[in-house]
Amino acid sequence: MNGNQHLFIPGPTNIPEPVRQAMNIPMEDMRAPDFPDFVSGLLTDLKKVYRMEAGRVFLFPSSGTGAWESAIQNTLNSGEKVLMSRFGQFSLLWVDMAERLGLDVDLCEVEWGKGVPADDYKSKLAADTSHSIKAVFCTQNETATGVKSDIAAVRAALDETGHPAMLFVDGVSSIASVEFEMDKWGVDLAVSGSQKGFMLPAGLGILGVSDKALEANKAIGNSGMNRCYFSFEDMIKLNDTGYFPYTPATQLLRGLRVSLDMLIEVGMENVWERHNRLAEGVRLAVAAWDGCELVSRGPEWASDTVSAIYTPDGVDARDVISAGFYKYNTSFGTGLNKLMGKAFRIGHLGSLNPVMLCGALSAAEMALTDAGAKIEPGSGVAAAQAHYCATTPSK
Amino acid sequence: MNGNQHLFIPGPTNIPEPVRQAMNIPMEDMRAPDFPDFVSGLLTDLKKVYRMEAGRVFLFPSSGTGAWESAIQNTLNSGEKVLMSRFGQFSLLWVDMAERLGLDVDLCEVEWGKGVPADDYKSKLAADTSHSIKAVFCTQNETATGVKSDIAAVRAALDETGHPAMLFVDGVSSIASVEFEMDKWGVDLAVSGSQKGFMLPAGLGILGVSDKALEANKAIGNSGMNRCYFSFEDMIKLNDTGYFPYTPATQLLRGLRVSLDMLIEVGMENVWERHNRLAEGVRLAVAAWDGCELVSRGPEWASDTVSAIYTPDGVDARDVISAGFYKYNTSFGTGLNKLMGKAFRIGHLGSLNPVMLCGALSAAEMALTDAGAKIEPGSGVAAAQAHYCATTPSK
Amino acid sequence: MNGNQHLFIPGPTNIPEPVRQAMNIPMEDMRAPDFPDFVSGLLTDLKKVYRMEAGRVFLFPSSGTGAWESAIQNTLNSGEKVLMSRFGQFSLLWVDMAERLGLDVDLCEVEWGKGVPADDYKSKLAADTSHSIKAVFCTQNETATGVKSDIAAVRAALDETGHPAMLFVDGVSSIASVEFEMDKWGVDLAVSGSQKGFMLPAGLGILGVSDKALEANKAIGNSGMNRCYFSFEDMIKLNDTGYFPYTPATQLLRGLRVSLDMLIEVGMENVWERHNRLAEGVRLAVAAWDGCELVSRGPEWASDTVSAIYTPDGVDARDVISAGFYKYNTSFGTGLNKLMGKAFRIGHLGSLNPVMLCGALSAAEMALTDAGAKIEPGSGVAAAQAHYCATTPSK
Amino acid sequence: MNGNQHLFIPGPTNIPEPVRQAMNIPMEDMRAPDFPDFVSGLLTDLKKVYRMEAGRVFLFPSSGTGAWESAIQNTLNSGEKVLMSRFGQFSLLWVDMAERLGLDVDLCEVEWGKGVPADDYKSKLAADTSHSIKAVFCTQNETATGVKSDIAAVRAALDETGHPAMLFVDGVSSIASVEFEMDKWGVDLAVSGSQKGFMLPAGLGILGVSDKALEANKAIGNSGMNRCYFSFEDMIKLNDTGYFPYTPATQLLRGLRVSLDMLIEVGMENVWERHNRLAEGVRLAVAAWDGCELVSRGPEWASDTVSAIYTPDGVDARDVISAGFYKYNTSFGTGLNKLMGKAFRIGHLGSLNPVMLCGALSAAEMALTDAGAKIEPGSGVAAAQAHYCATTPSK
Repeated sequence: MNGNQHLFIPGPTNIPEPVRQAMNIPMEDMRAPDFPDFVSGLLTDLKKVYRMEAGRVFLFPSSGTGAWESAIQNTLNSGEKVLMSRFGQFSLLWVDMAERLGLDVDLCEVEWGKGVPADDYKSKLAADTSHSIKAVFCTQNETATGVKSDIAAVRAALDETGHPAMLFVDGVSSIASVEFEMDKWGVDLAVSGSQKGFMLPAGLGILGVSDKALEANKAIGNSGMNRCYFSFEDMIKLNDTGYFPYTPATQLLRGLRVSLDMLIEVGMENVWERHNRLAEGVRLAVAAWDGCELVSRGPEWASDTVSAIYTPDGVDARDVISAGFYKYNTSFGTGLNKLMGKAFRIGHLGSLNPVMLCGALSAAEMALTDAGAKIEPGSGVAAAQAHYCATTPSK
Repeated sequence: MNGNQHLFIPGPTNIPEPVRQAMNIPMEDMRAPDFPDFVSGLLTDLKKVYRMEAGRVFLFPSSGTGAWESAIQNTLNSGEKVLMSRFGQFSLLWVDMAERLGLDVDLCEVEWGKGVPADDYKSKLAADTSHSIKAVFCTQNETATGVKSDIAAVRAALDETGHPAMLFVDGVSSIASVEFEMDKWGVDLAVSGSQKGFMLPAGLGILGVSDKALEANKAIGNSGMNRCYFSFEDMIKLNDTGYFPYTPATQLLRGLRVSLDMLIEVGMENVWERHNRLAEGVRLAVAAWDGCELVSRGPEWASDTVSAIYTPDGVDARDVISAGFYKYNTSFGTGLNKLMGKAFRIGHLGSLNPVMLCGALSAAEMALTDAGAKIEPGSGVAAAQAHYCATTPSK
Repeated sequence: MNGNQHLFIPGPTNIPEPVRQAMNIPMEDMRAPDFPDFVSGLLTDLKKVYRMEAGRVFLFPSSGTGAWESAIQNTLNSGEKVLMSRFGQFSLLWVDMAERLGLDVDLCEVEWGKGVPADDYKSKLAADTSHSIKAVFCTQNETATGVKSDIAAVRAALDETGHPAMLFVDGVSSIASVEFEMDKWGVDLAVSGSQKGFMLPAGLGILGVSDKALEANKAIGNSGMNRCYFSFEDMIKLNDTGYFPYTPATQLLRGLRVSLDMLIEVGMENVWERHNRLAEGVRLAVAAWDGCELVSRGPEWASDTVSAIYTPDGVDARDVISAGFYKYNTSFGTGLNKLMGKAFRIGHLGSLNPVMLCGALSAAEMALTDAGAKIEPGSGVAAAQAHYCATTPSK
Repeated sequence: MNGNQHLFIPGPTNIPEPVRQAMNIPMEDMRAPDFPDFVSGLLTDLKKVYRMEAGRVFLFPSSGTGAWESAIQNTLNSGEKVLMSRFGQFSLLWVDMAERLGLDVDLCEVEWGKGVPADDYKSKLAADTSHSIKAVFCTQNETATGVKSDIAAVRAALDETGHPAMLFVDGVSSIASVEFEMDKWGVDLAVSGSQKGFMLPAGLGILGVSDKALEANKAIGNSGMNRCYFSFEDMIKLNDTGYFPYTPATQLLRGLRVSLDMLIEVGMENVWERHNRLAEGVRLAVAAWDGCELVSRGPEWASDTVSAIYTPDGVDARDVISAGFYKYNTSFGTGLNKLMGKAFRIGHLGSLNPVMLCGALSAAEMALTDAGAKIEPGSGVAAAQAHYCATTPSK
C-alpha cells in the first residue's frame, strides 16, 4: 500500500510486464513433442543478442557463476596458465574460482576504478612466445565498481601478438545491455545470466561458446576437469534433439522467449544506445552532487549499466543504502569488499526509463541528505532532467 | 522494455502487489457454500473503512457512476427537490444525472476551484421551512479540480437548521484515502468505487447507506423510480444470504479482501495522514514552478488525493500531458471541460510513496519544459524532497 | 496443495491462460491517447462474434443483468406491451425485470424443460394486428434448465406475420459458445456477459444493438424511461471518440482483447462445433446413469452449454452438489427455484476439453454415489469417452 | 481456449494457486537488509520437511542433478569406492555421474522394476571389513520405473554390519511427497529438487546434509574434488549471514515460502497419506486395464509418486503418449531408455486430487484405445472412483 518498491541494483533488474505475464503459467512437460521447436528458437535468437553466427549458446539452470564454472571446466585443464585481472569484487571472485579449479593464474592487479589493462595484457602475451597462456579472461563490466573494459582492445592485443589463447569474457552485467560483439571481437567464451540485461529473474546461466572453444572442449575430452552438471558434452547431445540433459527452468525459458522478442524487435544497437543515454543522466547527477564522485576513474571506464558512487567524506554509504531501503522503498547496490561503506551503486540496466531514474536520483538525494551529505536537493535530478529532456525520443 | 508506465491519474490508481497477486486466480463459483462467509467479511470490513456501524454497504458490479444512480433511484422520487452544487466535471455530471432521473435540482453554481458552499446550503435549508428539500448532495472531492469540500460543515448546516434532508456524498475519490466519517458526519448515502483509494481495478461501485436511507428506501417502495439492477431490495435480500442478486465480480472481490486487510491493518487515520503528507510535497512543488498554480483556490480547498495545476500562460496543458505520455511513459490527468488545455492533474492517491511522486514531478517538469514552460528543472522536485525527507517515517 | 478446484458451473467459466496472463497487469489510463484505437478494435471484433455488420455493441461495467436493463430502458416505454415466455429461473427474472420497469408483459408460461414457444408467439403476433406488441423477448439458452430455444423460428414468426416488433434475445449463456446470428436472425437487442463464452471474469455486460433498435432509442428520446448509467446516448457519444462515459473495467477489456483474438482465430463455427461435441459427451453420460435424466424435454431443447440433470428419485441434488464441493473439489451448478434439490447442473461452455469433462463426470458419479444414487461407477465416463475418442480432432 | 493442459508427468508437478500467486512478483534485492530473516526461515522449515534437526539444507540455483553433483564433490575424493545400484534411467544417470567424477563404483545391477537391493548391499558391507566403501547410494524413488526403495532397510544394513559409510539418497521424486526421514534413517546426503513434491517450477536443487557429512566435507578440505559453484564452504559462509554466494532465484524462494507453509500446515504424515491414497487409485485402474501392468514388480516396489505402465503387447507406448498430447491435452511421462515404446508413466505427486486423476485415467484410456489397446473404456476410472469414493475425506 506504500507504493512500489524501487529496484536500482545492478541485477536482478526490473522485469517488463510482458515478461512477467509470460512467466505467470502452469508447469509444462519439458519432454513434450513441441518443446524442441521452442528450445531451438531460443538458442537461435540468443545468438542474435550475443552477435554470433557460428558456435553455440548454452542455457544452464544456474546463476551466472555456474556459467563461469562451465566455461573453465570444459575448455581448460588443471594447471594450465591463464591471464586474468582483478579490479573489483566480481573479477576477484572469478580469479578465486580459477585458482580453486586449479588454473595457474597470471594475475594483473588493477586499481579499483579501472578495468582490464589491455596494454599489460599485450605485453604479457607478446612475452609468452611459448603460448603457455591458454586463455585470457576479461570482466567486461565490473559490477562492483561500475567499470567497463575494452574487449576489442584485448582482441587487438591477441591479434597483434599472434597469440592463440582463448578469450573469456564475463558479460554478466553487460551482454544484452551494452555493446557486445561475440564474433567481431573474437570472443570464445562469454558468460551472462538471466537477471541483468535479459530482464528475467535469476536462474539461467547463459554461455556463448565459439567454434574454437568447442574444439578445445573436444580436444580436452575425458582428460580434463571433472564435470557433469556443467558439461558441454551432455548439453550438446541433448540440445541437438531440442531437449536438455536435466529438467530445465521452463518458467524462465518462457520469459526468455518474450525478452528475446523484445530485444530483437528493438534492435541491439538501440538497446545499447538507450543504456548509454540513461547512464549519462545518472553520471551528470553524480557530478552535480557536492562531494560525490564515480568510482570509475574517468569517462573511458564508466559503465553504462551501473554507477558506483563514492559518498562524501564522513558519509557512510551504508547509511545511504539503509535510508533508501527503510525510508524510501528504494534498493541501491551496496559497496562490496573494499568499497563497503565508501560507495553505493545505482543499477541502470534492463527495463528502465528516465522517470524511473529521476525517482532513483531523488531517492539517492534524500538518502544522502539523511546520511549527512551536504548536497543540494534536486541538483542531480535537475542535471539528469536536462539531459533526458534533450535526448529522450518521443514514441 | 522501456521501463514502467507511470500512472498519476486520480484513478484508477496503482495496485499494490498483494492485491494484484490476489486477483491472479482462476474463476470460482459465486454460489459455493463457503462464499457467504467471504462476502459477509467484506461487507463488515467495508463499514470500517466507511466508519459506520449501522446501515449497510452495497457492492455493485459497476463503476462509481452506477452507485450514484443507485443512491438516487432507491431513496428519492421523481420530482422531489434536492440541493446540489456544481464546481467541476464530476459535480456537474452528478447534477446532470439527478436532472435526467427527474429530480428537481436546486443548484448552487460555484467557482471552479472552490467546493460545496456550506453557508449557501445553510441559508437554503433554513429557508426551506416546509422541508421540501429531500436530500443535500455534496461532492467531497471534486476530482476535476482537486478540490475538497467540508462535509462536516454541511452536516452542521443540516443540524443547525433542524432540517431532515438526507445527506448524499460523492466520495469516489476521497473514501479510503482522506478523512471520511459516515456515522460522525451523519452521511446517509456515500458513493465510492474500487479504482481509487481501494487500489483495485475499476468495476465495483460501492455505496454506504445509513439506516435513515434504508428507511427512505422502504418508505418509497414500488412507488419510486423504476429500478432493478441497482435496487436495494434485491441486494438486501441476497446479501442477507451471503450472495448477490446476479453474478458478482469475484476477481475484484478477492482483490478487495486484500486491500481491506491492508487498509484496516494500517489504520484509516494513518492512511489519511499518508495522503496528506504526499499531497503536501506535490503542492510545494507546484508552488516552486514559475507560472504554475493550483486550480484549488486556497489551502482550505486543496485536495489530498489530486492536484489540478494551471499551466503557465501560453502553455497548453494538453502538450504537457502529451509529452508525459509519449516521451516520459507517464500518464497525468487531463483538464476536463472548461479546464481543457488550461490545467493538468497529478493524482496522488492510493498506493504511492515519495519516490514515485518525485518521479511524477520530474516527469511533469520535463513535460512542462517540452511544452514551453520556463520552469527551473528540479525546482519542484527539490521542494518536494525537502518535505519528504523531513516527514517520511522510517520503516 | 489438494490440486485444482474444478469449475463446472454455467459461468463464470474457466479462463484460458493467455486471458489470465493478459489481465495480470498494472492499471492504465483510460483516457490515454492510444486508448481509442484499442477500444475501437474491441467494438469491431465483438461484432464478429455477434455476427453483425451494422448496429453497435455496447460494453457496460456490469453483469449481464445490467445489459438486460439497458436494452429495455433505452428502447421501450413504460406501459408498452412485450411478448415474453417463462420456463426457468433466468427467463423468470427477465420477466420480473420487465414488469418492474413498467412493461405490460404478455406472458407465455412454458413447462420447465422446454423453451420459447415459437408457435404460440406466432399466434399472438398474428392476432396483434394493431401491432401493440413492441418487442418479443427470447431467452436463447435458459441456464437454469439447460434448454435452448430456436431464435430463427421466432424470427420466422415475426416475418411471416409481418409484425414489426423488435426481437430481444438473452444470449448470456449462448453467445460466443453456440450458434448466434445477429444479422441473419434479425435480432435487435442481444444481451451477453463476460463470464460465459467470452471466458472472462464477470464484470462486463455486453449488448448488441441493431440499427432498428438504435432508431427506436432515438425515437424515444427523453420521453422514455429514466436512465443514465445504462443510457445508449452517453455510451454512443463517448464510444464515438474511443472512450467511455465513466471509468471502464480496463483489466477486463485487456482480457477481452485476447479472448476475442482466440475466438476469431478459431472461427465461430468451430467454437460452436466444439461446444456441441463436448455437450454430446455429457448427454451420453447422463443417459448411462440409472435414474438420472436431463431436465430438457428432448434433444431439440438440449443446450450445448449447460446440462441440468434430474437426480434419481430419493436423491437430493443438493447432496450431490455438496459432495462435489466438499469431497471432490468440484463445483456444479445448483438447481434453481423449483429445481432446487431435484436437479444439478454441469456447465460445459467456455474453455474446456474432453479430459476436463471426464473429470467432471467422474466427480458427478462419485458425488451421486455418495448421495445415494445407484449408478454404475464409470458408466457415464465410459459413454463420454467413446464419443470423445471418436470425435476429438488431433492437433 | 481448448481448456487446461493436463500435466501428469512425474515432475514438474502442478503448482498450487497460492504458490503461483507468490511467484507473480517484481524482482527484489537479494542483499536487502530484511532478506536474511526470510532465508533463515526457509532453511529452518526445509528441515521440517526433511525431518532433520541437526545438519544443514542447501538451496542451489540448479536442477536436482546439481545437488547430486554437490553431494559427491563435497564429501568424497576421486578414486574412493562407493556402493551403488542401477535399475532405471535416473539411478543409471547417478552412476554415470559418479564414474565421471572419478569415483570407484561398486555397482549392483538390478532388474528394472525392483529397487535398491538391501540384502546385496548388506553382504557387500559385511564383506568390506576394511571400510573401503565410503558411501552407499540409494535412489529412493526411481522415477523412470515407478519403483520405491526401502531406505530404512539400507540403514539397517549399515547398522547391522557396523559400517561407517555415508548414506546418500536421491529423494528428488520422493521427498515432500512420500515418507522420508533424514534423522531417523540416518541419511547423510539427501537430494531433492523444487519441481516435484515442493510443487514449484524447476530451478532449485535442494540438498540435506547431516552433521556427519559436514564433517566429511571439512575433513576433505582443499584436497578433494575441484568445486566452486556447488561448494559447501561458500554456501555455509554466506548462508550463515542470511545470504547466498551468488544471486539466488528469489522468485522460486518466494514460491518455496508458500509451499513450505502449505506442507507444514497440512503435516508431512498427511501429505504422505494423500500420495498413497491417490496412487492406489491409479494402481487399481491399471489392474483393470486388460493387458497393461505396472513396471514395478510387486506392491512392495510400487511408488506412490509415479506409476510406469507397460502397454499391452503390440501397443507402442509412444502412440499412447502422442495421442494424450495431441488429442487430449494431456502430458504423460515417456518410457525412458529401455522402456521406450514399452511403457508410459503417470505422475501422481504434488498438488493433485481424485478428480484430476480420474481425468488422467480417462485420458489414458482414450489414448490407449487410440493406440490400439483393447481395454474397456471407463474400466480403470471405475476402479479408481470406487477407491476414491470410499477413501476421500470430506473437507
